[in-house]
Amino acid sequence: MARTYNVLVGQSGGPTAAINSSLAGVFDTAHSMGAGVLGMRYGIEGLFDDKLFDLSQALRSPADVQLLRQTPSSYLGSCRYKLPHPDESEEPYALLFDLFERNRISAVLYIGGNDSMDTIAKLAAYGERKGSALRFVGVPKTIDNDLEGTDHTPGYGSAAKFIATSVAEIGRDSSVYDLRNVTFVEIMGRNTGWLAGSSVLASQEHAVCPDLILLPESPVTEDALTSRIEELLGQMKSVVVAVSEGARRPDGTLMAEPPTSAIKRDAFGHEAALSGASRYLATLTAARLGVKTRAVEFSTLQRCANHLASATDLEEAYALGGMGVLAALEGKTGVIPAIRRISDQPYMIEYLTIDIASVANRERTVPPDWIRTDGMGVTDDFVRYARPLVQGEALPIYVGGLPHHIQMLTWGR
Amino acid sequence: MARTYNVLVGQSGGPTAAINSSLAGVFDTAHSMGAGVLGMRYGIEGLFDDKLFDLSQALRSPADVQLLRQTPSSYLGSCRYKLPHPDESEEPYALLFDLFERNRISAVLYIGGNDSMDTIAKLAAYGERKGSALRFVGVPKTIDNDLEGTDHTPGYGSAAKFIATSVAEIGRDSSVYDLRNVTFVEIMGRNTGWLAGSSVLASQEHAVCPDLILLPESPVTEDALTSRIEELLGQMKSVVVAVSEGARRPDGTLMAEPPTSAIKRDAFGHEAALSGASRYLATLTAARLGVKTRAVEFSTLQRCANHLASATDLEEAYALGGMGVLAALEGKTGVIPAIRRISDQPYMIEYLTIDIASVANRERTVPPDWIRTDGMGVTDDFVRYARPLVQGEALPIYVGGLPHHIQMLTWGR
Repeated sequence: MARTYNVLVGQSGGPTAAINSSLAGVFDTAHSMGAGVLGMRYGIEGLFDDKLFDLSQALRSPADVQLLRQTPSSYLGSCRYKLPHPDESEEPYALLFDLFERNRISAVLYIGGNDSMDTIAKLAAYGERKGSALRFVGVPKTIDNDLEGTDHTPGYGSAAKFIATSVAEIGRDSSVYDLRNVTFVEIMGRNTGWLAGSSVLASQEHAVCPDLILLPESPVTEDALTSRIEELLGQMKSVVVAVSEGARRPDGTLMAEPPTSAIKRDAFGHEAALSGASRYLATLTAARLGVKTRAVEFSTLQRCANHLASATDLEEAYALGGMGVLAALEGKTGVIPAIRRISDQPYMIEYLTIDIASVANRERTVPPDWIRTDGMGVTDDFVRYARPLVQGEALPIYVGGLPHHIQMLTWGR
Repeated sequence: MARTYNVLVGQSGGPTAAINSSLAGVFDTAHSMGAGVLGMRYGIEGLFDDKLFDLSQALRSPADVQLLRQTPSSYLGSCRYKLPHPDESEEPYALLFDLFERNRISAVLYIGGNDSMDTIAKLAAYGERKGSALRFVGVPKTIDNDLEGTDHTPGYGSAAKFIATSVAEIGRDSSVYDLRNVTFVEIMGRNTGWLAGSSVLASQEHAVCPDLILLPESPVTEDALTSRIEELLGQMKSVVVAVSEGARRPDGTLMAEPPTSAIKRDAFGHEAALSGASRYLATLTAARLGVKTRAVEFSTLQRCANHLASATDLEEAYALGGMGVLAALEGKTGVIPAIRRISDQPYMIEYLTIDIASVANRERTVPPDWIRTDGMGVTDDFVRYARPLVQGEALPIYVGGLPHHIQMLTWGR
């Protein structure tokens, strides 16, 4: 930590397949510019316990960095800490800025979703108010793909690749017996259907699978859903329905919960983790239609299946990490690097920097005209949007027949 | 169907990642010998409706066969039909042998697990009794790896590769937050722990994951399990437990069900599909230890994730399919081709043919001395056994960023 200036980097929120690739981008870029790179353990929350360390001690070679890029989960550890507004409590700010100064930090990069962007926005505003020269830059990541201001977010493409691949495999698995059956596949996404929608990519020229997709943006009645499934079962034996965990009825109640239940909220005021939409619908459909049903939940697999990561996704995540460092070097603060799409086919993008205030605490949903008119699927526009994001294989380094990972700092043993 | 002799092939029981590779082996070998190859749709059960067709019409090129080898699920469709004993009802036998004759069948190959071997054993015995020249040969497959007489079964290695890979990824995902937590990963295996045991391969030099493995062969009390988890939480933040769906208490009751519940049985007298061991244990552990817990079920993903198939597994499955045809050609009936292991390291095997009567309706469990003395894990002997079976990647043919599959006959649309 004897460098004249240091970059501090942290990871926050739920892990993704690409969040370590962004960390690698931050590290490589800062390192190549002669900066020291310090890592936060367990995000901003860990800083309150002085949990930071010199990343170059852990990443000693390009091979280490390559392994990091292909390792799932958040290498540095993560948190779900919400920074209070400084008018409410200035103490955390004082503690953090003192720590930044003691460690000769000149830029703080925080890789995360909209909640993490809220943290960076607050720190940047506070720093500017205090006349600090410190720069605060967010680096976007979230499998949910719900960030405003960027065409898409790192992590989404890899999750989409896992989801579409697995739905295609499950679709084939579910059709083996000579009997009518319905499979409900539950996919993450509490308020947005970007992930569930990506299952549409499972369709190939000879197979339309999934047959229906339920998105939080497009509530359906249980009656309409049952009728549609019944209709499909008149044409085919095996029906596959992709269900957002946040799929809901027109009255706003979640398929996952009885209509009257109180919905728990986390520190950010979000609905707490849900489970059960697929199970509920499997039970309902079996009872109403007398067919065999099954519920499959992808659970955390969809965000940590690095063995099936999208090469496009990992590349972009890496680039955005590096872009964040460059933005800080240019003196920018309170910004995030983002992606603007130039063309779907051929796929072309450009990188830009946007104001973090336009992003934090907002949520981007699937456009209404990308949802099928029956409300139970997505259109070709969605396919054109999502298809480029799953392109390319980031093949693991296999050791002993299994994907190899870098040792996790957070392994805790 | 104008050939002078035909081979009839069917698939039965639950699909695996390798069952189509065995079908490809049967097809290529029979085809190369000038035989016609007919396929049963939906196994023996489909034959009662004359559901058979010329496979060479569907598989028109080596590229088609290659795609078949990499496609999950049972290409021909499957069934869970139990043939009655001929003393009990001879009618199905009369129907089947008439169909065999009409279609100039000289050999019947049936790819399946121990239930399917029961079918082949009965047909072979009946044929011999009637002086028929027809040959009946079983081709082993089952992810459960519970077949007697063979070192291992096709399908197991690929399932093990998916399980170990995913447990390693989940282990990393579950360690990101700075809080104590326990993850229960539920793995198939109603009566044997071969699949749950394979999760041990997730351990790498720097990570012991999963920490505990619960096998049906090794019942544990809830108290012993809770104590062990508590002990581990004293040494590490994040504990991962791999749980067989058939994990049970010393009194024989399943972790998945309340002790008093009646256990449903299927046509073969097996316990019906279970679910809930991981959920039950997650709830129990959260209540007893006051830590965050999570249940993850691999569900059918573990048997259909061809994108992560073991090359060793697919190769052996293909070879055994071809071996079955050769055995029939040599005039053998009532046999199955099997694998004998010569060496773990280097991994060497030989193929042989065994009497099907020694296999049908029997179940091979994990040897007691491959289970850890605490009853909650497996030994290095298990690792030496399982490690070679997950070696090698059978990389998919990617189209549009996703693994490509052959069109399923059973797609039903």
